[in-house]
Amino acid sequence: MNTAARLFHFLGGEAGPWRVIAQQAVVGAPLAPVEHVAVSPTPDSACGWVLRGITSNERYVERGEKEALVARQQSLGRPQSTRAALIPLRKSAAWWALTQDERRDVFEARSRHIETGLRYLPAVARRLHHCRDLGPDEPFDFITWFEYAPVDEPEFDELLQALRATPEWAFVEREVDIRLAAL
Amino acid sequence: MNTAARLFHFLGGEAGPWRVIAQQAVVGAPLAPVEHVAVSPTPDSACGWVLRGITSNERYVERGEKEALVARQQSLGRPQSTRAALIPLRKSAAWWALTQDERRDVFEARSRHIETGLRYLPAVARRLHHCRDLGPDEPFDFITWFEYAPVDEPEFDELLQALRATPEWAFVEREVDIRLAAL
Repeated sequence: MNTAARLFHFLGGEAGPWRVIAQQAVVGAPLAPVEHVAVSPTPDSACGWVLRGITSNERYVERGEKEALVARQQSLGRPQSTRAALIPLRKSAAWWALTQDERRDVFEARSRHIETGLRYLPAVARRLHHCRDLGPDEPFDFITWFEYAPVDEPEFDELLQALRATPEWAFVEREVDIRLAAL
Repeated sequence: MNTAARLFHFLGGEAGPWRVIAQQAVVGAPLAPVEHVAVSPTPDSACGWVLRGITSNERYVERGEKEALVARQQSLGRPQSTRAALIPLRKSAAWWALTQDERRDVFEARSRHIETGLRYLPAVARRLHHCRDLGPDEPFDFITWFEYAPVDEPEFDELLQALRATPEWAFVEREVDIRLAAL
């Protein structure tokens, strides 16, 4: 396994291959407005802000769900995926104080996070990055990067609307939604 | 929550409040032999090696188990706890490729990790630190720090022997066991 490829930096600033077309604080503090975003294995001091996250093992997915996901999911970088969304979010201390069974119960039994996400595959490709255990002072817990074709943006909005209405989202205390178009 | 207190550094070298009384590579590569260990919120360039880990949410414990643990566990720093053990370990890629239900099945249903640990409370106090998501190049996945009274060391050895005989330990590819006495 190429372990170095697990860590990603999201650079917001005046340059980068993704142009910001919308930037919204869904809940909690916003991020400083930027014009472009780049995704990089390394940080870059020349930009406005840097978010970072690391890909990791799955925390809730069970074997049957994994097989359903793998059968349908597509990779990032498809030529028709000229739209992207960068969504960093942070969950509350109450979420992190739950035990594994309680978090799984909110995540899937009550919120159908995996089942809902599956309905938007293969149109929406996704990579989840964890931030919480990168260090003690990370501003977000997770960063999700999504890619899709322009024609699928209404479906993507529907997916987010469905997730944001779930019991799981009651634990989200900060979320920023940045929409991007490939240059 | 004081988030800064989540990150700990374990400094192996020629000074520190814990004297090394035994250092053994249980499986995989050893660590360079040292005479003392210190536990610190910050790294220190003057020492032989530095391991680091971050406390985090529990990954397998369910609510009933959590209540049993909280009812019996004691905190670090008890005056009679003049012995400690520093045990960093790394699990295989095969472990991390398992889904959550499969890891839980190996961890508790097949290996009784929590149930076994409970039997050694309150004699053995413990703090688990995660390393895997601190960055892409950490040498270990976990560091566990244990404290107990000298009279309880045989029981502590029995606990380790029981855990190392479980199916879970078939996934351990590196483990170092460092025993310490308070100065």
